[in-house]
Amino acid sequence: MKFEAENTDILEEPYEFQKLLGFRMVDWTAERVIIQLPMRGELTNRYGIPHGGVHAAMLDTVMGYAGCYTGDPDHIRQAMTLTLNVNYLSRPKGDVLIAEGRKVGGGKRSFFAEGTVRDETGERIATGSGAFRYRSDSVG
Amino acid sequence: MKFEAENTDILEEPYEFQKLLGFRMVDWTAERVIIQLPMRGELTNRYGIPHGGVHAAMLDTVMGYAGCYTGDPDHIRQAMTLTLNVNYLSRPKGDVLIAEGRKVGGGKRSFFAEGTVRDETGERIATGSGAFRYRSDSVG
Amino acid sequence: MKFEAENTDILEEPYEFQKLLGFRMVDWTAERVIIQLPMRGELTNRYGIPHGGVHAAMLDTVMGYAGCYTGDPDHIRQAMTLTLNVNYLSRPKGDVLIAEGRKVGGGKRSFFAEGTVRDETGERIATGSGAFRYRSDSVG
Amino acid sequence: MKFEAENTDILEEPYEFQKLLGFRMVDWTAERVIIQLPMRGELTNRYGIPHGGVHAAMLDTVMGYAGCYTGDPDHIRQAMTLTLNVNYLSRPKGDVLIAEGRKVGGGKRSFFAEGTVRDETGERIATGSGAFRYRSDSVG
Repeated sequence: MKFEAENTDILEEPYEFQKLLGFRMVDWTAERVIIQLPMRGELTNRYGIPHGGVHAAMLDTVMGYAGCYTGDPDHIRQAMTLTLNVNYLSRPKGDVLIAEGRKVGGGKRSFFAEGTVRDETGERIATGSGAFRYRSDSVG
Repeated sequence: MKFEAENTDILEEPYEFQKLLGFRMVDWTAERVIIQLPMRGELTNRYGIPHGGVHAAMLDTVMGYAGCYTGDPDHIRQAMTLTLNVNYLSRPKGDVLIAEGRKVGGGKRSFFAEGTVRDETGERIATGSGAFRYRSDSVG
Repeated sequence: MKFEAENTDILEEPYEFQKLLGFRMVDWTAERVIIQLPMRGELTNRYGIPHGGVHAAMLDTVMGYAGCYTGDPDHIRQAMTLTLNVNYLSRPKGDVLIAEGRKVGGGKRSFFAEGTVRDETGERIATGSGAFRYRSDSVG
Repeated sequence: MKFEAENTDILEEPYEFQKLLGFRMVDWTAERVIIQLPMRGELTNRYGIPHGGVHAAMLDTVMGYAGCYTGDPDHIRQAMTLTLNVNYLSRPKGDVLIAEGRKVGGGKRSFFAEGTVRDETGERIATGSGAFRYRSDSVG
């Protein structure tokens, strides 16, 4: 899988935790958000595989962004996670974790999103869903 | 709150992701697991507060360990997360995140756990629950 | 366990689905909500044990009410479930399902709650958590 | 939407709770499970809309069956729900609730499934996911 960030003008600067984990946003449209994270030793747990917190962080990220798309860098919409649910399906076979998020419902005050983490072989590693509420001080 | 790790002989060496996030296990008994994580800029999201993935990682960690206590460093029990659910209650007022996990049920093949993230002022930041399965190659 | 409904003046009339399942509210205070449901054949699944939907319905009910307590029957607060998470710990040994719900956080627009289903022997059958939003047309 | 149950020979007899709620299985293949439930007053909550426990029960049902398909009525596979997560997206506009479940991963001992509840207009009412474990005494 290869992603071209066609809408690079709306992609935001990486924030602190994003830099610590090392993921990169490669797509952010009204339909979906995609981030990529190359695996490395620093992300592994006591069993030598990616820590479940890595998948959770990626899913929280793509689902949150999925509900905040405006298409206009001058109008930023922001949201807080209310609940996050993650199902851990399998271990990665490849070297890159790719998370995709989609908004699936909601209204003016809150929204729902779903997400999936795969590796570059297409293996589905984890799925997630969540409820989010818009920050009242962000563009509605 | 202050925790004395009385059972330091069973505390394991920090693994890679643990070192990246910077949390430290301070208690691990049959009843509970506690880890601490001093806040720092690297853990913050685009809003300047701890990224939801941090709480998720902490909860996944303490709940997983909670079901794997044996009290004997020569007999290691291991588990994989099946599902993780996190509720984000509030923002931290303090400077240290403290996560506590407890096993709440289960059998020989799987277990359930609950957890809470507070800060050092006692403010409850997040709660979580999860289902885990024991690795078949670990001590039952 | 025996519960005395001391605050019978605020207990509401049973609604339709409540009558179909057969549960009864026995306590509703600022601290907790408790409902009871005597087991019967109609509530069982293809294995002859209570259907998971029964526990889910009970947990959704007590958690939703937990966030809506006002103590005043003339001021009704209402809420909608955003997300519901249920962990199925064990099977009942007794003949009555008793669900208890508690509000654990939230603000003016939404709240979080936790709940537990036990039987009359004290056996913990299921635990749950959820996020709810207040209906804007109800007393805030 | 109209469903023809082509594989009626593997559809099981309704069990007790199924009869109480009134849903009917209309499809059960390796790919998906579908059940239908005509709305009626008995299924409504204190607001006059379907109780959240109804959607939860339907999702638990279709997801559980989704992992137990064998295609052979003489070989029955059985599973217990470990965790159930439900997101409540909107209210039904129509008169029939239609739940669909799909297995999305797992192994010999446990599986994961996802599900959706729609009405006959296609409106998405609720989504769910869950982890289940196979009963050890059922065909593996």
